[in-house]
Amino acid sequence: MKVIVVGGTGTIGTAVVKELKPRHEVVVVGSHSGDLQCDIASEESIRQMYEKVGTFHAVVSTVGNVHFEELAQMTPEKYKIGLDHKLMGQVNLVLIGTRYIQEAGSFTLTSGILSHDPIRAGSSASMVNSAIEGFVLGAAIELPKKLRINVVSPTVLQESMDMFGPFFRGYEAVPAARVALAYSKSVEGLQTGCVYRVES
Amino acid sequence: MKVIVVGGTGTIGTAVVKELKPRHEVVVVGSHSGDLQCDIASEESIRQMYEKVGTFHAVVSTVGNVHFEELAQMTPEKYKIGLDHKLMGQVNLVLIGTRYIQEAGSFTLTSGILSHDPIRAGSSASMVNSAIEGFVLGAAIELPKKLRINVVSPTVLQESMDMFGPFFRGYEAVPAARVALAYSKSVEGLQTGCVYRVES
Repeated sequence: MKVIVVGGTGTIGTAVVKELKPRHEVVVVGSHSGDLQCDIASEESIRQMYEKVGTFHAVVSTVGNVHFEELAQMTPEKYKIGLDHKLMGQVNLVLIGTRYIQEAGSFTLTSGILSHDPIRAGSSASMVNSAIEGFVLGAAIELPKKLRINVVSPTVLQESMDMFGPFFRGYEAVPAARVALAYSKSVEGLQTGCVYRVES
Repeated sequence: MKVIVVGGTGTIGTAVVKELKPRHEVVVVGSHSGDLQCDIASEESIRQMYEKVGTFHAVVSTVGNVHFEELAQMTPEKYKIGLDHKLMGQVNLVLIGTRYIQEAGSFTLTSGILSHDPIRAGSSASMVNSAIEGFVLGAAIELPKKLRINVVSPTVLQESMDMFGPFFRGYEAVPAARVALAYSKSVEGLQTGCVYRVES
C-alpha cells in the first residue's frame, strides 16, 4: 500500500512511519520537513499535497494544534485554534482526500485521552478530541468507495513526559511505538468507525 | 431558584419549563419570543440577556442549530454552522454566564444521541454533540465558584417524529416530558460533569 502519514515527522508520526515502512510505501508529510509539506489549516495546501502524491491507499493523520489554558482565561478565539486546526484540519484531510484516495482505502485520525479523562487547562482539547471521535463515527457510515475511517486516542507519550509530565500527573504514559500499532491496525485491518484507545 | 431556560419556547424547552415552573422562578428565553430574547451566536446578545435577568442560579440551554446533509455534500462552511451555533453558542453561555451566575449555580447543556449512534446526513451533528460532551467533561473540573455543569443527550422526541421520523427509523422516540426530567436532575441535584442520556 501507499500510505500518506501527515505529521510523519512528529513523535507519534515517526513511530507510525517506522511501524509501516517495512511493509508499505510511506509518504512522510510534515509542516516544514518530510517528503512533502502540508499546512492542514489550508484546504488548498491539502489539495496540492494529494495532487503531488498521486495514487495512494491510506491517509494517517497525527497532527493538530489545540490551545491549552485554564478555563477562566479561555475565549471563543482560543477554542477556535483547535476547532480550525486539529478538528477541521483533519476533517478536511478526509473530505478532500475522499476524492483522491483509492477504493477501499482508509483514513486514520488522531484524538486523545482528554476527550473523556480531562486535565486542568484542557477544556479545548477535551472538546476537540471528542468532536473528532464523533465525526469519525458519523462519517464511517457514509463514506463512499468502500472507504474506512478510524481514530486513535492516545494517552500522553513516554517520549513527551519531559515536556508534558507536569500536566499529566498520574497518567500512565505509553511509548509511541505502542501507539503506532493502533494506526497499523486501522490501516492494515478492515474495521471502520472505531476509536482505538491506547491509554494504559 | 431562578432558572434561565434558553430555548424555553422550543419542544424540549417547553417541557423543561413545565417541569421546573412549579418549584422555581423560570425565565423563558427564545430567539423571537419568550420573556427575553437571545441570539446565542452573539456574545453581546448573551451578555445583554444575563444583564437583564439579574440574579440567577441556573442556566438550561436547549438550543443549537446544526446542518444536516449527506457527507459527500458537506463542506467546512456547513460544519461551521453547528460549530458556531450549537457548540460555541452553548460554550459562550457558560464562559460568559460564569461571571454572572450565583455561587454553586449550574449550567445544563444539550447534545444528542447522534454523538455515538449516527444517521445518514448527521456527521456534523455527531461531531458537534460529541464536542459539547467533551467540553462539559473538561469544564466541569475547572469551573470556579462551586459551579456545576452537565449535558443532556436526548434521542429523537415523540413530538418531533412527524418531522424527523424518516431520518430516525428504528430509533425509540421518547416524550419531551421524560427528557425534561434529566434537566431537572441536573439543575436540582448536585452532580457535575455528567452526560445524561435519555435515549430509550
